[in-house]
Amino acid sequence: MDIGSYLSGFADGEGSFCICFSPSQRHAFGWEIRPSFSVSQKRERAEVLQLFRDFLGCGTLRNSQRDGTIKYEVRSISDLVEKVIPHFDRYPLLSGKRQEFEIFSTICKRMSRGEHLTLSSFKELVELAFRMNFTGNRRYTKEEIFNTLRER
Amino acid sequence: MDIGSYLSGFADGEGSFCICFSPSQRHAFGWEIRPSFSVSQKRERAEVLQLFRDFLGCGTLRNSQRDGTIKYEVRSISDLVEKVIPHFDRYPLLSGKRQEFEIFSTICKRMSRGEHLTLSSFKELVELAFRMNFTGNRRYTKEEIFNTLRER
Repeated sequence: MDIGSYLSGFADGEGSFCICFSPSQRHAFGWEIRPSFSVSQKRERAEVLQLFRDFLGCGTLRNSQRDGTIKYEVRSISDLVEKVIPHFDRYPLLSGKRQEFEIFSTICKRMSRGEHLTLSSFKELVELAFRMNFTGNRRYTKEEIFNTLRER
Repeated sequence: MDIGSYLSGFADGEGSFCICFSPSQRHAFGWEIRPSFSVSQKRERAEVLQLFRDFLGCGTLRNSQRDGTIKYEVRSISDLVEKVIPHFDRYPLLSGKRQEFEIFSTICKRMSRGEHLTLSSFKELVELAFRMNFTGNRRYTKEEIFNTLRER
């Protein structure tokens, strides 16, 4: 049994690579861009989430009071680039979710080089993010973001 | 990357070990007991289901018109006992779903020895099956089955 392969299989079904946007006065251009890798499970089946945290050596477990689930989540760009992404490079996803991961990986690496801090690159990251097929609904459309970007 | 471990990880999240009961005039005691291992995915993400079929060397893929999913399913007792169960013995589930699998394994092995064909053993299999925590809803309660069992 190979735990790395096992966790990639689990994540292929249950994991989520997300690039979220939210309006923010604190951030350049009026929008925060926030990548995250997460896996949610019902509380009584959370063993595997601890395994993710231990094996990847990063991330947090959080209770959701709302729906009785536990969420494993990594938001730190450096953890994503140095731990999560190398894991899925080594143990690749075998479903179409791999394409989501590849875009996610590109965005995280560009952010770790500070590319979200110049307007032209930020726009490219927005374009890239909207090529991902999220299962969840996006709160904002690409047009809403582009139409409200402001120079600092 | 180890495909066996990967598939067990995927199945730990997305797979289902089920012991279903349905009223049947063709079966001993008026009830059919039907074990199955299945994994369902949206149509655009069905690559991994083909991998299950190829790697385990059994089972079928079926389109569900109703909800746009594809279901990989193994129902044959001999395939379950000779292929599916040995796979999960070798690459064990790491969540609480393992307990479901252990009961499932016991029931399948006892059925492969014909134990569902005597009334006392059939009742034991019903008791065992109702110790599993199905995520789906059961159509019949244990009491309904016990109250309507008939000798052949």
